[in-house]
Amino acid sequence: MEEVNVGIVGLGNVGSGTLAILAENGDQIALKLGYRLKVVAVCSRSVCSKEIPAELGDVFKTTEWREVVTHPDVQIVAELVGGTSVAKEIVNAAIENRKSVVTANKELMADCGPEIWDRAIHAGINLAMEASVCGGIPIHAVLREGISGDRVMALYGILNGTCNYMLTEMEKREVPLAGVLAEAQMLGYAEADPSADIDGFDARSKLVLLAALAFGEKITPSDIFMEGIRRISPLDFQYARQLKHTIRLICGARKTASGLILFVRPALIPTSTILAGVQGAYNAVWVKGKYGEDTFYYGWGAGARPTGVAVVSDLMRVAREIRSGSPERVSPFAHERLGENKPVSILLQKRAYYLRFRVDDRPGIIAKLAGILASKKISLEAVLQEPCDTKHDLPFVITVEETSEQSIREAVEEMSHLDFMREAPLALPMETAL
Amino acid sequence: MEEVNVGIVGLGNVGSGTLAILAENGDQIALKLGYRLKVVAVCSRSVCSKEIPAELGDVFKTTEWREVVTHPDVQIVAELVGGTSVAKEIVNAAIENRKSVVTANKELMADCGPEIWDRAIHAGINLAMEASVCGGIPIHAVLREGISGDRVMALYGILNGTCNYMLTEMEKREVPLAGVLAEAQMLGYAEADPSADIDGFDARSKLVLLAALAFGEKITPSDIFMEGIRRISPLDFQYARQLKHTIRLICGARKTASGLILFVRPALIPTSTILAGVQGAYNAVWVKGKYGEDTFYYGWGAGARPTGVAVVSDLMRVAREIRSGSPERVSPFAHERLGENKPVSILLQKRAYYLRFRVDDRPGIIAKLAGILASKKISLEAVLQEPCDTKHDLPFVITVEETSEQSIREAVEEMSHLDFMREAPLALPMETAL
Repeated sequence: MEEVNVGIVGLGNVGSGTLAILAENGDQIALKLGYRLKVVAVCSRSVCSKEIPAELGDVFKTTEWREVVTHPDVQIVAELVGGTSVAKEIVNAAIENRKSVVTANKELMADCGPEIWDRAIHAGINLAMEASVCGGIPIHAVLREGISGDRVMALYGILNGTCNYMLTEMEKREVPLAGVLAEAQMLGYAEADPSADIDGFDARSKLVLLAALAFGEKITPSDIFMEGIRRISPLDFQYARQLKHTIRLICGARKTASGLILFVRPALIPTSTILAGVQGAYNAVWVKGKYGEDTFYYGWGAGARPTGVAVVSDLMRVAREIRSGSPERVSPFAHERLGENKPVSILLQKRAYYLRFRVDDRPGIIAKLAGILASKKISLEAVLQEPCDTKHDLPFVITVEETSEQSIREAVEEMSHLDFMREAPLALPMETAL
Repeated sequence: MEEVNVGIVGLGNVGSGTLAILAENGDQIALKLGYRLKVVAVCSRSVCSKEIPAELGDVFKTTEWREVVTHPDVQIVAELVGGTSVAKEIVNAAIENRKSVVTANKELMADCGPEIWDRAIHAGINLAMEASVCGGIPIHAVLREGISGDRVMALYGILNGTCNYMLTEMEKREVPLAGVLAEAQMLGYAEADPSADIDGFDARSKLVLLAALAFGEKITPSDIFMEGIRRISPLDFQYARQLKHTIRLICGARKTASGLILFVRPALIPTSTILAGVQGAYNAVWVKGKYGEDTFYYGWGAGARPTGVAVVSDLMRVAREIRSGSPERVSPFAHERLGENKPVSILLQKRAYYLRFRVDDRPGIIAKLAGILASKKISLEAVLQEPCDTKHDLPFVITVEETSEQSIREAVEEMSHLDFMREAPLALPMETAL
């Protein structure tokens, strides 16, 4: 049976991983499909100096992406360049030329996913984007097919491997943030400017896409409350442990009576949960369905080969669709038009909270703080204090029963002006409902 | 747009769950598909006394399954009766009548999967079986689509929720097997005759199917080494903890240089692994891919609604295929014809092992055991002993470095004849490569 022909645009990390898998695993792919996937054209800025695996045979090489998307033999274009400007041109040009498209581009799909899908459906071509979020975890296949009969009630992800590596190292070895950040930078997990990771921007753009797919609602970054991990210290892990919890940077999307609550923030989660077992630079997604209850998915969030597997699996899926003549018909972004999932402010959420203070010790502190909590109708649950040598910078923790984010913010604001307070209290939600 | 019409055969646990989801979640399903799934016919032995949800409207009810598979309006038959005799007739009759088929039947697909798939492909109809193994975990979608570009090197599952519940309770509360079994029976997790669960039969039939799909090789129960959990005691968890491991009933399939090693047996796994975090009656599957490294999937293994989600998701998938006119073309059972994955004997496997003894204490015991190990060229790694009052029934543990299952069996056989040995030594592999 004749092969299906692929053009690859972009030979960076993911592009090279994709080519390597197509070359090495070509025989098994052909057995699974019933025909071969053939790479007929590749484009990159330095394509002449790049090694094309010998198993792929004769491949047209170019530095001009238009030559791939207009190549008469190419049936599927894999857009692996990243970014949103040229990538969008490539994808749109491919669709105009009636090529199917596989993309690994998180930013592009988060920003323009619904629009690109509508265009693809209109043109009658197929589009796939497994690699665009959580590279090694087949979360798109799960949401689109595996549990498509369910209705997602909540989705909690650990979507930034760098932060998870830093937090689990801090937990294990009690090294402060600056130390684990330096290590992560040495290992190549963190950039010289770590803000995209540790302030939550990267995780937030992943959540935009995942939540849109899970809840079928247009999500924008501004719908998502974002707080990074800069204020988390080894001490917080000690207190969390006393409470049988740990701390992770959680990307959450949760249906409530008022609407969809969305956040990226450090939160306490019970150590007994499967999400708490995610160590190191792994990613994970926990999904709570109305009917199927909870399911959980775990793997590498990035990397040339894990992401390459996602691209190759998408190429196989699209090849099957091309062969069976079945174009895309329904966008994965728009299944929930029932008006239940409009994003609402985090201020509406109800949670138990962990409040960590650093104070100059003196009599009456607890009374003062308890008074503020009472004035906001917040019920104090427990007061915890680890042994400490100093009276000048005394840490302790108060946990409070379920209350609104609004009330906690008001209380924290009022508390931060107290003269014994060395820094604004740190408030973290306790996500015990996992 | 017109609906796709479904006939349901079997209204037990899974059938009722499926109907409930189709009724309650019908609007969202229609948004995801672009048309409705309509239940037009149901069959069960006591269909007249069963409640059909009002949202489903007018449904033809019968006690005769042939009336569903020959019903002119039915496009997809969901076979939810279980077992292998009538179920096989139903599936075959549906295929003959050119109906697509969704099945939740583990035994049937494990026994006759390849044959039924070939028949379905020949007839040009579609077949789906997400619910047949690990009900709530979309493992078929993952293997068929999500990571189809990868080559599976190993698959480790916790596939029997009853055993996992019993083992984790034994671990937490130090209750012996008889006690946790009685509790599991009270909770309805275990049958009056618990053999299918605790001796490994249920887990083995699941592994037959999963391994066939992951490795594309025909697997039969006799290819799989099976050992149940009857000999595991709270003491073993204490020793395992000293070794930073826990014990789970592991369903394993692993590529080796000699071929595919398959087993269902209690094994030690490191507590730091994500698989060790699977508590209670959950199921989980850990997959090691050649390119994508490890991914992990977790959820309820059974239950009316989790399994119902799998059935409904399959109905949606098949409906999409019917609408796009794309019949099945390649069986998911036969992608690996490269001759790499022939099942081979467990005796060939190399692992570190945990050996637990119960002896009448006297001088020279360790010397004697160490002598036997040395004679088989097995290197002793550690000797562990928990504090103990008695000399008559003294437990202790020896761990040994990587050796073959063959050598360990010979050593254990020789050791069991020693006069101080109160019972045959318990040998468990240490699955540290997770």
